[in-house]
Amino acid sequence: MNWKLGVTIFAGKMLGLFAVIMAMMMLPGLLGMPAMAADTYTAHETSVINSLNTVWTLVAAFLVFGMQAGFVMLEAGFARKRESVNILVECALDTAICGVSFWAIGYAFMFGAGNGFIGNQYYFLQNAPATYGTTGVALLAHWIFQFAFADTASTITSGAMIGRTSFRGDILYSICVTAFIYPIIGHWAWGPDGFLAMMGSPGMFLPGSQPFRDFAGSTVVHTIGGMVSLAGAIVLGPRIGRVFLRDDKEKGGLPAAHSLPLATIGAFLLWFGWYGFNPGSTLSAMDFEGIGRIAANTTLAACTGSLAAMFAALLIGPFKGKFDTGFTLNGMLAGLVAITCPCYWVSPFGAVIIGLVAGFVVFGGIYLLEHLRIDDPVGAVSVHGFAGIWGTLSLGLFASGQYGATGPLGADNSAPVSGLFYGGGFDVLKAQFIGSFTVTVATFLVSLLVMVAVSKLPYPYKLRVEPEGETGPGGLDVWEHGAEAYHD
Amino acid sequence: MNWKLGVTIFAGKMLGLFAVIMAMMMLPGLLGMPAMAADTYTAHETSVINSLNTVWTLVAAFLVFGMQAGFVMLEAGFARKRESVNILVECALDTAICGVSFWAIGYAFMFGAGNGFIGNQYYFLQNAPATYGTTGVALLAHWIFQFAFADTASTITSGAMIGRTSFRGDILYSICVTAFIYPIIGHWAWGPDGFLAMMGSPGMFLPGSQPFRDFAGSTVVHTIGGMVSLAGAIVLGPRIGRVFLRDDKEKGGLPAAHSLPLATIGAFLLWFGWYGFNPGSTLSAMDFEGIGRIAANTTLAACTGSLAAMFAALLIGPFKGKFDTGFTLNGMLAGLVAITCPCYWVSPFGAVIIGLVAGFVVFGGIYLLEHLRIDDPVGAVSVHGFAGIWGTLSLGLFASGQYGATGPLGADNSAPVSGLFYGGGFDVLKAQFIGSFTVTVATFLVSLLVMVAVSKLPYPYKLRVEPEGETGPGGLDVWEHGAEAYHD
Amino acid sequence: MNWKLGVTIFAGKMLGLFAVIMAMMMLPGLLGMPAMAADTYTAHETSVINSLNTVWTLVAAFLVFGMQAGFVMLEAGFARKRESVNILVECALDTAICGVSFWAIGYAFMFGAGNGFIGNQYYFLQNAPATYGTTGVALLAHWIFQFAFADTASTITSGAMIGRTSFRGDILYSICVTAFIYPIIGHWAWGPDGFLAMMGSPGMFLPGSQPFRDFAGSTVVHTIGGMVSLAGAIVLGPRIGRVFLRDDKEKGGLPAAHSLPLATIGAFLLWFGWYGFNPGSTLSAMDFEGIGRIAANTTLAACTGSLAAMFAALLIGPFKGKFDTGFTLNGMLAGLVAITCPCYWVSPFGAVIIGLVAGFVVFGGIYLLEHLRIDDPVGAVSVHGFAGIWGTLSLGLFASGQYGATGPLGADNSAPVSGLFYGGGFDVLKAQFIGSFTVTVATFLVSLLVMVAVSKLPYPYKLRVEPEGETGPGGLDVWEHGAEAYHD
Repeated sequence: MNWKLGVTIFAGKMLGLFAVIMAMMMLPGLLGMPAMAADTYTAHETSVINSLNTVWTLVAAFLVFGMQAGFVMLEAGFARKRESVNILVECALDTAICGVSFWAIGYAFMFGAGNGFIGNQYYFLQNAPATYGTTGVALLAHWIFQFAFADTASTITSGAMIGRTSFRGDILYSICVTAFIYPIIGHWAWGPDGFLAMMGSPGMFLPGSQPFRDFAGSTVVHTIGGMVSLAGAIVLGPRIGRVFLRDDKEKGGLPAAHSLPLATIGAFLLWFGWYGFNPGSTLSAMDFEGIGRIAANTTLAACTGSLAAMFAALLIGPFKGKFDTGFTLNGMLAGLVAITCPCYWVSPFGAVIIGLVAGFVVFGGIYLLEHLRIDDPVGAVSVHGFAGIWGTLSLGLFASGQYGATGPLGADNSAPVSGLFYGGGFDVLKAQFIGSFTVTVATFLVSLLVMVAVSKLPYPYKLRVEPEGETGPGGLDVWEHGAEAYHD
Repeated sequence: MNWKLGVTIFAGKMLGLFAVIMAMMMLPGLLGMPAMAADTYTAHETSVINSLNTVWTLVAAFLVFGMQAGFVMLEAGFARKRESVNILVECALDTAICGVSFWAIGYAFMFGAGNGFIGNQYYFLQNAPATYGTTGVALLAHWIFQFAFADTASTITSGAMIGRTSFRGDILYSICVTAFIYPIIGHWAWGPDGFLAMMGSPGMFLPGSQPFRDFAGSTVVHTIGGMVSLAGAIVLGPRIGRVFLRDDKEKGGLPAAHSLPLATIGAFLLWFGWYGFNPGSTLSAMDFEGIGRIAANTTLAACTGSLAAMFAALLIGPFKGKFDTGFTLNGMLAGLVAITCPCYWVSPFGAVIIGLVAGFVVFGGIYLLEHLRIDDPVGAVSVHGFAGIWGTLSLGLFASGQYGATGPLGADNSAPVSGLFYGGGFDVLKAQFIGSFTVTVATFLVSLLVMVAVSKLPYPYKLRVEPEGETGPGGLDVWEHGAEAYHD
Repeated sequence: MNWKLGVTIFAGKMLGLFAVIMAMMMLPGLLGMPAMAADTYTAHETSVINSLNTVWTLVAAFLVFGMQAGFVMLEAGFARKRESVNILVECALDTAICGVSFWAIGYAFMFGAGNGFIGNQYYFLQNAPATYGTTGVALLAHWIFQFAFADTASTITSGAMIGRTSFRGDILYSICVTAFIYPIIGHWAWGPDGFLAMMGSPGMFLPGSQPFRDFAGSTVVHTIGGMVSLAGAIVLGPRIGRVFLRDDKEKGGLPAAHSLPLATIGAFLLWFGWYGFNPGSTLSAMDFEGIGRIAANTTLAACTGSLAAMFAALLIGPFKGKFDTGFTLNGMLAGLVAITCPCYWVSPFGAVIIGLVAGFVVFGGIYLLEHLRIDDPVGAVSVHGFAGIWGTLSLGLFASGQYGATGPLGADNSAPVSGLFYGGGFDVLKAQFIGSFTVTVATFLVSLLVMVAVSKLPYPYKLRVEPEGETGPGGLDVWEHGAEAYHD
């Protein structure tokens, strides 16, 4: 240990001692003073805190990005073998498109200041400050975190459109989703001046109301993804030869998953990545009680969601008596989707119930789509769309009024808030309903428009592949990619 | 940069300068003073440290949770195709059960204060403080870290019971393991007042002895998991048609793994997750030399474990002349299991030897079980049970006496300690033997009782599936889950 | 909250207040003073910063290690089924060998001080300081980070040598690579006194020139790995029956990948791990703008790389009209390899272009090797070798002159630097060319020597397996490992 360091350490010890002595002397006279100086951090402290928060945000971003591997596995596993390569390449392409469009305009539309409907700053990441807002997190770290979210929303859409979407059609609608639909509608809830985020403030939309809250994106990411999916699945129509449950209760509805090991491992990787998705959305490690609570709530909702869906399928319907893999996994994911919005404000007990209900929601949702003869090969509409709506509303019921930011750099919406079951009345539920309804309807209608438009394009750009692309030898994989998933 | 921030930064600089000057003036007169003030951290420093430690614990918890994906792959890969869906759904269910029971009572039994045998606080996570013990880590972050450990112990058990356990039987014994066996026996070694943890303290069990040390759980997680496995495999008996090595040296013992790629990738993911398991068990990032040392030791033991088992199989026995995948992977995992207990206190050289021996232990263990005609499809008893015992004892040999906590928030057991080969005599070895023996025997006996009890239940709740569940078309997967792993 | 903590918190508040008041009083007289005290961190601050930087480095190291799972999947997926077990076991073994040799001598040769050509300190990690250099990162954390890098270089080599390398031959050349070739040549660029790192300093190689810069290893890891691959593939010759594209344009060149799902998931896991590789190479979380920028640049280059290679294959050559999986994934990886060197110093716009060009480089590289009748089953030479060279040179073009270290503990080479397109002239490009050329040629020649030497050994130690090992039933997997990848 060199001389200089020794002195520094010694100085540190002395300062500590000095502080204790000074504090003890001043204690009696000063106890009444407001703690106004407590939030004044030194430059050294600020740089450490910014670094810690940026590391936390980046690690979370990496975990969220890792969900792409989970989605690829889940979707390819649930697909038929003949359409699984298509899913793989689509996920790779969607990610690439998302990166470029979120760099060019997506981030600008979503997180730039502009007006209540759209952001208008930071195109091509130009002229952006070093850190995002008041978070102290490096702006480019925030960008990659949000890119990973946008990529998630984009990837969700491909699940319901498996097996009959043309690759060029996928490119076209993907650009619309990641460059326009997701960032613009997302701006409403998460932008610095989005009208749902500002809802209730003086002079804004519905003054006096509660703001719309969506901590980590049950609505912004999952409902948007689920509604684009739904529009796509409706416009496309079912795969050729798809038999629905209502038409053949004996045979079961969904075509058999080509690889349940792939699908299961994918679901576990998604759960793993969700630990970035939810806790990372604090953008602050200093709120250390908050990130612990979010992680625990996320865990519990996933557990009860899978139990609920597994036992529902065991006891009701054509899978009766079997512990079904698909329902178990989709229940797990539904629990995760549902807790994504309320994770910050509910207690572990609330998370247990929210997940449980989500498991039943996804079970009912899958039956509903079978009844409506909508072909959603992986259950994306139910898992992300319906469970996302449930999770968003659940905040209005279970927000416990106990939890607010503990750190110096908390998010704007992190004040304690109480739902119906915790004495807060209907205010929060109303705000959540308005936000969820607005986003759900807007996304569905705009997506429907986009999907119809792409489906009217001439071959080979139109949305649905030619019939021989689906039914030919090797299926969609050979038609679009010239290769089969497995060889030998 | 605004005016206020400028002033703050300037103040920081001045304070630093002031400290250096003050220290230099006071140096001569104060050098003899005890450094009692050194551990007085300011409120700002404490909140940064708590945040950093919570982030570290959470990231580690996520990595440990990620091991579930690794276990799913390893176990399904080593299984026969006809029983692999069963493994997938079991892992999902075990995780869900573990989450709920560890929330309700498991954490209370294990980490609540109570008496030497069982904890009695924090049921349903109620009335718990914001942070765990003296660590400054958010209690819910500690909960999820420990949930992931419990889940690991629970998942280990399914490996040895592959292919003939009924799903309802699995549910029943899983509840016993995650709600009772693991947390209560775990309390002995890791609870705030467990009798093995307190062993040697005045007025406690064996006063004057060394305490039992298990840094990250060679005993608590792996031996418990391995012994439950052993009891289960014995009570179940082998799968129908299983041929043991001693009966047919030509054909080889273990049924062929249905997917070696799955198994291998699973083993790598387990290794990856182990970097949360061992280094994360500091619960403190401030002990930054400690976490670096643990990570390096973990790496080296895995490397030498796989080399030892690979070369043992190359040179001895019916696999002679072949570089066997199964032994290589199980040697790697045995090295990881063995270093889990001593990782904090041994040098890299010690880790190299401990891993090497673990590779031979797992090689011998697998032969022993073949000889005893116990059907353990993945080698769980040898990898987790036997290598866990070896690793626990190895601390008594290799603890180097050099390493203690460097941070302000070190764990209680983190004082330097010396083993037999480093001049410390037999004291540590004795304490390790007592702890390992107690846990091993207690777990085995209680598990045997549970397994026998479940096996006496009427159909369909009894432990072993009906014979047609094993031998029918589609095997256990179609019998219990109505689906085959692969389709088309 | 106990009394002592209350006092401590109060003292913290008072100190903060005191600092602000003091600063305001002293402001007028002191504004002209140099900020010399600004970089004097207290002992408490230093220990927090060291802890944060060590956590960052460890998390990055774990992510880089996780790339092994990605490589296993990518290589086994692109291989034929009959040679895929071989890849799995080779990756496990290469990792084990790398751990032991990097512990014994590799780290000493690479990061020990010695002379410009080789390091000479820390054999067996003995006599090493607690932290590495001036980084404050625990030395053993730095060791595991660098072990993971060495392991990456080692694993890259196996990709181009798939399907005809004997396992004993693999062991021999792997020891040469991880114990000698990689660490010694790596020392030139990254050692504390390596001649390429010091290039341009007074009295050193080429005084007055720019130093050679390789932020995270486009050259050190990827070009070295790629050039060893090339030497191996040339000395081995192609697999029996391999048809090259130039000889059969109809059938296509590369043998069909046995599992495209495996390969694709592997590529995503590699991308995931790259977030440790590049941002972690700061070894400092305090440079929080730097780590955000690196992560964003890494993302963008991967996106444009995959787009470029996908569309090149769509428009040109025998795969015309198809969205090819292999080219898409290799383009993604080429973008990642290329941005690895310049990631710290270029803008997001630069990253977009660098990735785009890398996609074309890998497309051309694969055709070149087909033309030269060199059998590289996974494209390792093009992805790691050629794109690594491009990335290294690209710094000389795109270094933007805007980015330097923001933290207190920046790396030596982290000063702003400008390339040809940003007004910096040819200086940086020249230095990059010299470094890349030196490493490329040296690695290729030494590796050629090693490969030829191993190929001259007697059976069974010689590099290439006997013909019946390739063509027999069950292929290389049964020949070397006594097992097939899939059973049933």
